[in-house]
Amino acid sequence: MSIRVAILGYGNLGRGMECAVKQNDDMELVAVFTRRDPATVKTLTDVKVYNVDQLLSMQDQIDVLVLCGGSATDLPKQTAEYAKYFNVVDSFDTHAKIPEHFAQVDTAAKEGGKVAMISVGWDPGMFSLNRLYANAILRDGSDYTFWGKGVSQGHSDAIRRIPGVKDAKQYTIPVEAALEAVRNCENPVLTTRQKHTRECFVVAEEGADKAQIEEQIKTMPNYFADYDTTVHFITEEELQRDHAGIPHGGFVLRTGKTGLNGEHDHVIEYSLKLDSNPEFTSCVLTAYARAAYRMNQEGQNGCKTVFDVAPAYLSTLTPEEMRSTLL
Amino acid sequence: MSIRVAILGYGNLGRGMECAVKQNDDMELVAVFTRRDPATVKTLTDVKVYNVDQLLSMQDQIDVLVLCGGSATDLPKQTAEYAKYFNVVDSFDTHAKIPEHFAQVDTAAKEGGKVAMISVGWDPGMFSLNRLYANAILRDGSDYTFWGKGVSQGHSDAIRRIPGVKDAKQYTIPVEAALEAVRNCENPVLTTRQKHTRECFVVAEEGADKAQIEEQIKTMPNYFADYDTTVHFITEEELQRDHAGIPHGGFVLRTGKTGLNGEHDHVIEYSLKLDSNPEFTSCVLTAYARAAYRMNQEGQNGCKTVFDVAPAYLSTLTPEEMRSTLL
Repeated sequence: MSIRVAILGYGNLGRGMECAVKQNDDMELVAVFTRRDPATVKTLTDVKVYNVDQLLSMQDQIDVLVLCGGSATDLPKQTAEYAKYFNVVDSFDTHAKIPEHFAQVDTAAKEGGKVAMISVGWDPGMFSLNRLYANAILRDGSDYTFWGKGVSQGHSDAIRRIPGVKDAKQYTIPVEAALEAVRNCENPVLTTRQKHTRECFVVAEEGADKAQIEEQIKTMPNYFADYDTTVHFITEEELQRDHAGIPHGGFVLRTGKTGLNGEHDHVIEYSLKLDSNPEFTSCVLTAYARAAYRMNQEGQNGCKTVFDVAPAYLSTLTPEEMRSTLL
Repeated sequence: MSIRVAILGYGNLGRGMECAVKQNDDMELVAVFTRRDPATVKTLTDVKVYNVDQLLSMQDQIDVLVLCGGSATDLPKQTAEYAKYFNVVDSFDTHAKIPEHFAQVDTAAKEGGKVAMISVGWDPGMFSLNRLYANAILRDGSDYTFWGKGVSQGHSDAIRRIPGVKDAKQYTIPVEAALEAVRNCENPVLTTRQKHTRECFVVAEEGADKAQIEEQIKTMPNYFADYDTTVHFITEEELQRDHAGIPHGGFVLRTGKTGLNGEHDHVIEYSLKLDSNPEFTSCVLTAYARAAYRMNQEGQNGCKTVFDVAPAYLSTLTPEEMRSTLL
């Protein structure tokens, strides 16, 4: 019998989930829930769309609910709310608030006897896993995470809020020289500016003062002031044609020493190059939805992160197949 | 209280374990067991050395026994034998015989109520984990594993068996163009020759026919015939000076497509660059020794692989610390 998956929230991540579930034979997407009028939501496939009001009444038709809302306002409420009734998976990515989110969701999931997986995706998610594994292995070492090349939604939004800006896209780019220094076990201590550069593609309103816009971007505190930032003014057509995608990726490295006197250097590196950030995140959510369902079937409950999930729960292979083909 | 670790077998891996345990505050190395006369074994630290005959009598002083013998003849006997009495970890790496080894060890470990971790290291081990995670995430894709640049003990030994060869070291080297094609999502179908080259450094006996040795190396079935092989004749002093290390490493990649019609490409890459193959392997064994002990303390038993171990068991951090610092 298939694992019956439902989605709450139908933006980029929801659409990604719709595609990801289709790639998994052991799952079926039974419903999309939205806060909008379902009649106005056009899905990619023929999955049924319901208003979120109907969600609780369909509890017996859903094995895992994947929450596809945002970390700012949706997930801090929704995950704990629905973990009482469903096995849930979310991609909560406000790193500083994860402990608080965990505590709330854990209480709810235990109350409902469900498994709730939080902060699933690639960072937090796969990058976190790689930080943990590498730290457990190389005890005497240094950690580095680089992001990009990829689109930062938050930084793009920040540019769009500047008067005179019609539209914008911002790319975060790791500094190649810094990456190389890490790979060479030089253990560099890197400033914010030394790790990433920022490249902005901006469509200005007609008659806007471009020099003024560029100055405002480059001096914006937190977002750009601490970085070497390049600003390109382009036309709306160019933005649509060349910058419509949502690529991302990055690198997690740990370098460390072994031997009686630390005489040997080692480098562990994990990297992702993603054409579509939300579609890849959805693929990770799908694998952890499988794990959430299985762990709950075994009688487990409460809030879990990627650290708590034995890798075997993610795979469709039998233990024998895993050992003979992947080990 | 510290986790009390013992080692059986004191070669390169045993020495690596001796160093690795020292890097972990929550562990202590209580004994090294050997088949040799203990008086002839010179350890790096002041750890006590015993003959293997005394191992069973020291059961109450050991929490985890790490088996540091070879996969050809030692581990197929030892792991099952000692899994009845101890939580054990081994680095059994004969991929084709893992199912058989698992079955024997599982029976023994269940009989003894112990946890036995097999095939721990980097391949099998960390590379296997990355194959599993990447396959669970990217469902429509291709897998690639490249090894090197590193020393292959088996290939070095094969050269040493040729008449007229005094000593030799063989490096396995991934073909950069093949790696690039994979990273570019070209999904190449690669022959053995296209994936790796082999570079040999050979010390010939005085008066030996070097051309004849080179010919014998390059045409050796299984080991070299299917590869582009380079042979360098050097002096014994050069071999000692420039090729004394045991470096290794490699790359695990999975590329795959997502989207409704597979319109987006993704690359997941994991790589290791290791100055010392046995020391790095020992570090992985140490982390899984911690996991074996903890899982057994929780009441688990039987044979496990890296697929069965939730990452949190490997870390010395509390769950709260993990979530706040690594997630």
